[in-house]
Amino acid sequence: MLSRIITLLTDFGTEDYFVAAMKGVILTRSPNSVLVDITHAILPQDVRAAAFTLSAAYPNFPAGSIHLAVVDPGVGSDRRPVLIETGAHLFVGPDNGLFSFVLDQVPEARIRHLTNAAYFLPNPSSTFHGRDVFAPVAAALAEGIPPEQLGPTIQDPIRFQSSQCESTPDGALSGRIMHIDHFGNCVTNLPWDLLLPLSPARPFSLQVKEFHIQKLAQSYREGAADRETPFLICGSAGFVEISVESNSAARQLKIRVGEPVRLAWG
Amino acid sequence: MLSRIITLLTDFGTEDYFVAAMKGVILTRSPNSVLVDITHAILPQDVRAAAFTLSAAYPNFPAGSIHLAVVDPGVGSDRRPVLIETGAHLFVGPDNGLFSFVLDQVPEARIRHLTNAAYFLPNPSSTFHGRDVFAPVAAALAEGIPPEQLGPTIQDPIRFQSSQCESTPDGALSGRIMHIDHFGNCVTNLPWDLLLPLSPARPFSLQVKEFHIQKLAQSYREGAADRETPFLICGSAGFVEISVESNSAARQLKIRVGEPVRLAWG
Amino acid sequence: MLSRIITLLTDFGTEDYFVAAMKGVILTRSPNSVLVDITHAILPQDVRAAAFTLSAAYPNFPAGSIHLAVVDPGVGSDRRPVLIETGAHLFVGPDNGLFSFVLDQVPEARIRHLTNAAYFLPNPSSTFHGRDVFAPVAAALAEGIPPEQLGPTIQDPIRFQSSQCESTPDGALSGRIMHIDHFGNCVTNLPWDLLLPLSPARPFSLQVKEFHIQKLAQSYREGAADRETPFLICGSAGFVEISVESNSAARQLKIRVGEPVRLAWG
Repeated sequence: MLSRIITLLTDFGTEDYFVAAMKGVILTRSPNSVLVDITHAILPQDVRAAAFTLSAAYPNFPAGSIHLAVVDPGVGSDRRPVLIETGAHLFVGPDNGLFSFVLDQVPEARIRHLTNAAYFLPNPSSTFHGRDVFAPVAAALAEGIPPEQLGPTIQDPIRFQSSQCESTPDGALSGRIMHIDHFGNCVTNLPWDLLLPLSPARPFSLQVKEFHIQKLAQSYREGAADRETPFLICGSAGFVEISVESNSAARQLKIRVGEPVRLAWG
Repeated sequence: MLSRIITLLTDFGTEDYFVAAMKGVILTRSPNSVLVDITHAILPQDVRAAAFTLSAAYPNFPAGSIHLAVVDPGVGSDRRPVLIETGAHLFVGPDNGLFSFVLDQVPEARIRHLTNAAYFLPNPSSTFHGRDVFAPVAAALAEGIPPEQLGPTIQDPIRFQSSQCESTPDGALSGRIMHIDHFGNCVTNLPWDLLLPLSPARPFSLQVKEFHIQKLAQSYREGAADRETPFLICGSAGFVEISVESNSAARQLKIRVGEPVRLAWG
Repeated sequence: MLSRIITLLTDFGTEDYFVAAMKGVILTRSPNSVLVDITHAILPQDVRAAAFTLSAAYPNFPAGSIHLAVVDPGVGSDRRPVLIETGAHLFVGPDNGLFSFVLDQVPEARIRHLTNAAYFLPNPSSTFHGRDVFAPVAAALAEGIPPEQLGPTIQDPIRFQSSQCESTPDGALSGRIMHIDHFGNCVTNLPWDLLLPLSPARPFSLQVKEFHIQKLAQSYREGAADRETPFLICGSAGFVEISVESNSAARQLKIRVGEPVRLAWG
């Protein structure tokens, strides 16, 4: 029997019964599913952070994986439950912007409104669609139910403003801090690939707050001439990151998510 | 080969080797078991919180699941290790009240004292029965060892005072706050089903501390006329909850677990 | 098809995509692997704490398990990626002392420098070898690739000073606090087995800071004459621990990791 991977990403924390309830529902309906937590430590109702983390995690999973993402301040209201089909991956969750970055990455994705209550738990609550709607739908997909049985396609999903950075008239790039990781590295929305050649041979300066960062490192340790000078590095999600050796760049530079950045050359 | 689900609930935290040690023991003795964490973030030795979380999580799992629960301040003393058989589910852990709510739900459950050391690790420690006693017993059950081989039935398990609320002479219901969740919602022990009809059509008032809550919402967002007025909602565990939109009701109203509540009509 | 256990231990935390990225890579290349988290809550870059936790967790897993450990401040520098073969277990991670305690336990272990990039992800980053180097190597091992294909043996792994305690001229034992657990128990590096007979019949005194501990308990509860007097107990990792009943010994005695201890008799 084929086993499908179902990943889970929520803001439920891990101290309650919430995550386990979802897993119990999935394993009841799809006993061979392989469950993998992405994270349950998204800050409560921080849909934007969830969108970033999801988009950085899912590409590492094999084709056919199902990604269950529930950060859902509008649970029980008229916000739509949706399924995103990108070809290789399936995504299940609320239509509130959570899939914005996935849709940036795969503009041709098909989106469905999950309307077929036959695949929900009976009498779903209005407070816990993770357990009552999204988990059983993920289980149905894992069991091979075709997406077209779950609901009609839609064209107008909720999306954040583009996650992408912008060129300015003077040839610079204007972006922002998209994420701060566990180590305090500050992830910008400047894709490393677009910035090539970003090299010591061509002087650059990234401005964030009052700081002008002109140093580039290949590894965190290489950046370690001292522990106070911030440097840029190609982060593992493919974006320019601001780091400080053995220290939290976010704490040292007092940077928060959303902070504007500006990268200029020459 | 059949694979059985074993859930784990402890107060061990996730920063130590404790949970992994239990899982290693289980997978050594029952390689096909499917392990699912409920939580390991129960506050140290908070048996009552563990009892609630366990009772809210386990019903979502398929029949035949084995639930390993270890919040065990009396480890190594003469407190008994026990097995609870409810028919559909099996529970393994210390006899210290941890299974009180399960026993409220399934009064006809059979309870065994785990006395057969042949199913423990050799030379069990007196400090870590999770690894040395309960994990190998759960593995034995997963491998199909019949419960009657594990020890004799007993009739006198340790139980908390009933988790149930009480009717007062004037027709009100008297209860308490049983749990505060990750979002700050305050879960009472007033079962929603018993309160029907709880509706805007029949005026009610729930008193907690100096607050009198008279508002009812179908969803968290519906409660959001403002972000300061608390409202009641049917929580996902089936109990009346006190919530505040996009905020922690526990923090805003300064409510703790154990706080008395009183629901009156008319 | 045989399924192999792969455990994971990192300092990545659980709020980012890091751990999920590693799991996605493993499951892509070794779909039948069974993944078990040891912990991801090692303090950032605390290689010594990781070494202890790994050494306490892995012996509980069945022979043939693969242990992926990534606490890696030198990622992207010239520190070597290594494989440790102890006979029953395989370990994959950076050569920075992380496997010191494993090598103390199994001095005859074989150590390989992972040089064969054919088993890495294509174009590995210099910031995330957990995903790009160590996870795919663990997957290759799980799929049965023989260790000798992964790189040559080496004789000079980085090791911490021995984890072992020392005898002093006057017959005492000199050691240190190796770990403080979730409950505040202070784990020394004094192996319980070596200390036998440690019993109330033969007076002893363990000195830590200004405290002289002369009490021994078989269980945490037995130590509970009062909640302030610390006592010694045989911890579940096999070392002497300093505990206080229902309280954190570390907090009460203000003990930190590294604090010297001295055990004398008579």
